[in-house]
Amino acid sequence: MIVEIVTIGDELLLGETIDVNAVWLARELGAIGIPVVRRTTVGDGAAAITSAVREALDRTGALITTGGLGPTADDRTRPAIAALFGRELREDASIWEGLRAIWRDRGRPGEPPEANRVQALVPDGAVVLHNRHGTAPGLFLEDEDGRWVAMLPGVPREMRGLMHDELLPRLRARTEDDRRVIRSVTLRTTGIAESSLPDLLGEYAEGFASVTLAYLPGQEGVDLRLTVRDARPGDADQVLATAADALRSRLGRHWYADGPTDLAEVVVHACRETSRRLAVGESCTGGMLASRITSVSGASDIFRGGIIAYDNTVKVEHLGVDPGLLAHQGAVSEEVARAMAAGARAALQADIGVGITGIAGPGGGTPEKPVGLVWIAVDVEGEVVVHGGRFIGDRAEIRFRATQAALNMLRRALLEID
Amino acid sequence: MIVEIVTIGDELLLGETIDVNAVWLARELGAIGIPVVRRTTVGDGAAAITSAVREALDRTGALITTGGLGPTADDRTRPAIAALFGRELREDASIWEGLRAIWRDRGRPGEPPEANRVQALVPDGAVVLHNRHGTAPGLFLEDEDGRWVAMLPGVPREMRGLMHDELLPRLRARTEDDRRVIRSVTLRTTGIAESSLPDLLGEYAEGFASVTLAYLPGQEGVDLRLTVRDARPGDADQVLATAADALRSRLGRHWYADGPTDLAEVVVHACRETSRRLAVGESCTGGMLASRITSVSGASDIFRGGIIAYDNTVKVEHLGVDPGLLAHQGAVSEEVARAMAAGARAALQADIGVGITGIAGPGGGTPEKPVGLVWIAVDVEGEVVVHGGRFIGDRAEIRFRATQAALNMLRRALLEID
Repeated sequence: MIVEIVTIGDELLLGETIDVNAVWLARELGAIGIPVVRRTTVGDGAAAITSAVREALDRTGALITTGGLGPTADDRTRPAIAALFGRELREDASIWEGLRAIWRDRGRPGEPPEANRVQALVPDGAVVLHNRHGTAPGLFLEDEDGRWVAMLPGVPREMRGLMHDELLPRLRARTEDDRRVIRSVTLRTTGIAESSLPDLLGEYAEGFASVTLAYLPGQEGVDLRLTVRDARPGDADQVLATAADALRSRLGRHWYADGPTDLAEVVVHACRETSRRLAVGESCTGGMLASRITSVSGASDIFRGGIIAYDNTVKVEHLGVDPGLLAHQGAVSEEVARAMAAGARAALQADIGVGITGIAGPGGGTPEKPVGLVWIAVDVEGEVVVHGGRFIGDRAEIRFRATQAALNMLRRALLEID
Repeated sequence: MIVEIVTIGDELLLGETIDVNAVWLARELGAIGIPVVRRTTVGDGAAAITSAVREALDRTGALITTGGLGPTADDRTRPAIAALFGRELREDASIWEGLRAIWRDRGRPGEPPEANRVQALVPDGAVVLHNRHGTAPGLFLEDEDGRWVAMLPGVPREMRGLMHDELLPRLRARTEDDRRVIRSVTLRTTGIAESSLPDLLGEYAEGFASVTLAYLPGQEGVDLRLTVRDARPGDADQVLATAADALRSRLGRHWYADGPTDLAEVVVHACRETSRRLAVGESCTGGMLASRITSVSGASDIFRGGIIAYDNTVKVEHLGVDPGLLAHQGAVSEEVARAMAAGARAALQADIGVGITGIAGPGGGTPEKPVGLVWIAVDVEGEVVVHGGRFIGDRAEIRFRATQAALNMLRRALLEID
């Protein structure tokens, strides 16, 4: 079985919304050995939906759509696909009852708006995929030749719930007899340029016999994706594990985790393993480092807190930075980064302190201290490593790259990696 | 002119990377009146690239691709499209010289890796689109019937630079005589359910004569996108402005900005307008609120800083929360949120303090204080508004929704909107 994904919505075509659903679906399907071979996005128009769905069915006979199942007039997926399959739409009384129950549970007065009634329409012969997370049910429609379309809502949380509860179990059952899988693993690296990786990887730079290798550069670093296709599940796992081991040893300190693990998770884990409590003092990153750390569930075991010292008086009063240092070296300097790290550690009673100070731009740069210049210090029980450098990109990229560099310094300090 | 976009990369199909390029391209093209009518994603295989490109050219004769121009073996866009157009690839000496110059400028020793040499290959008759932001140049290839493909790199920053520097000016010149545009504007709302909007909007719920209306629900709230198609530029702007005014007045306090403005920008602006300085005390959101505020350039004019009080001792020592309150009411309580807001204001010498305390999950919930319960207080010069409620979603969603709710409370307090 191979599938295509068609995501529907003018907002996707116009670029107002990022298509997170397609990404998530591809991962879930890949994990059960169903390759997504193409992804298409069309607008809300019925003709565009019809042609994209027809073409995808002609290529693969198996298709998942997202979007266009809502209660408003721009939601045309249901009638367009019903017409393509030659099926009538009829109101399903139990869906309407369900919508009324949701309305009441949410404490809303009266009846749901009449607009919601279209969400109770079901094409003849379709299987209703119950939505425990919202109002729009999904639909599964199959023709006499076994070609099928699964229609899922566009709201990510609802789409994901429906996929887990209803669609994935069905697809798993269908592929049980013919289980040739795709497996992939991603090795995450940071602090090394994409074009330097082939030299480091030597004879593995273009992959192995049955393992393909892709280079995926991004803000976090370069991810290396190893993929095995069309193999039996056990074989695939073994081949992949061997290849990943070989690559990890070539990558050395540049490898920090297998995907999709965030570097912050590695750091939280390393703090827990070494029984150390962490605190941060942030200036230009303005809380982003703390936010990445606390996005890891269980971070409260090791994270004490942070001081966002945007104004210099906060650096002095809450992080104990010497006002003389600020006056003589300037806020963006090695010395102030060191003092912020030591201050965060002391003021928040932690074992490790991080200090970040820099110029995120677009304003505030000078010839001596240009936009992008960031000083980062990591103080582990008084042992300090410090790094100063210029990050490229816009304000958002500079801030993010600074947090990534700080996390990488923490990782290397905690795990004692030179 | 209408165009399609084909984004290339196994990482996109497998769902390892979110396709931010397609989003950005669609916006830029829409802004100069060139509609994107379909978007397709295929993997790195040459056959998949060839068929997607051929089909798109058959439909529209105009296509932009991203990805597959890098220096490694999985980069096959250049040879695949050259073959489709029946053109030979030849090394362009000036591109290779440029790559060597970049290598030297970055302070790297010796010559660039041989792998980079494929990036200097150009199909016969192609126009080279110079890349000032990285190593991979873009290519513009046109056949005798005027059908064209523009190939851009996949790294977002490089793609955006090339588009602005090289491709957009070309496309603008080509469409000058036939300027029928699409214009759209997005009205952002928060704090109101999608299905309640049609009632609020009344006769405008399905759009206006020539203006279509789309409902785009997301974590931040529901965006309403108004679109005018195939109009003259001046007419489109006028029709859209009239429609947007009418909708804004129906939306009342639920409207906070036109897209893509983030709510944090509205708050920073309102602080500046009312000459008030802001400070935050965050627990469950762990710095995310401060990070959103400081992502706005110029936030330093109004943002003093923040205390991320993950551990209760930090709440006491840096925010001055009474230990008795913590013991009797618990950290997640109205009283502690109030004390954190007042404490942030006092400790950081601000006019406004925000306090957020809650249970982001997945652990830590109890029957009385379930996962998702968050208390938020906003203290403007001693006048306090407070809100307690349960947010739905996973850890990331609960944290984000809490920051959105806090920003909305700030907006309403600062702009005196009931």
